[in-house]
Amino acid sequence: MASSNISGTAVDQSKNKDTATEGSNQLKNEYINKTLKKDVDKVVDKYDLQDISGQCNASQNKTVSYCRCWKSKKFPLCDGSHNAWNKETGDNIGPLVITNNSQSNKQ
Amino acid sequence: MASSNISGTAVDQSKNKDTATEGSNQLKNEYINKTLKKDVDKVVDKYDLQDISGQCNASQNKTVSYCRCWKSKKFPLCDGSHNAWNKETGDNIGPLVITNNSQSNKQ
Ligand code: FES
Ligand code: FES
Repeated sequence: MASSNISGTAVDQSKNKDTATEGSNQLKNEYINKTLKKDVDKVVDKYDLQDISGQCNASQNKTVSYCRCWKSKKFPLCDGSHNAWNKETGDNIGPLVITNNSQSNKQ
Repeated sequence: MASSNISGTAVDQSKNKDTATEGSNQLKNEYINKTLKKDVDKVVDKYDLQDISGQCNASQNKTVSYCRCWKSKKFPLCDGSHNAWNKETGDNIGPLVITNNSQSNKQ
């Protein structure tokens, strides 16, 4: 769309396009979030500290991990999918982990 | 490394490689985390509920936002950089927001 090279053949045009707009097209194809709630403008997850505290208490090791790779089947919770992404791509991402250490002091 | 086409010229080899491994190469170039702590195997940030509670209290609106786009200059906190990413790419990512509503009940 940026350059309309009418004199070129169909094949040449496609080739030119690939080269010319490689940067922006590649970005569009490389959403960080490829699958989750793509019908909403912005996926924001909101929790209150009290709820998280409850989750921490319920979990065996009193921690809750929140996904930052957008690949988790339990999103917004982390299910370990970041490991597959890191292995596949060489990336180094991981979750936000919230602990409830104060709990062990209280009870 | 996967295929060593010794009979090809240097140029041909590079061309073949680009086509053959396009998928995986593209992934390598498209790290979700392009810049942060690339020297560590996995970036995991750990907070205790007590610390977060303190942060919530300190912030004017009693919320703390954690980055899930890996673009924030205040990582692991969100600085709004997700908006530029979403605009640039058409993606729809946003932070994890933690509120401290219980605080208003207590005091
Ligand atoms: S599954 Fe996404 S960070 Fe763990
Ligand atoms: S700056 Fe990364 S989610 Fe807001």
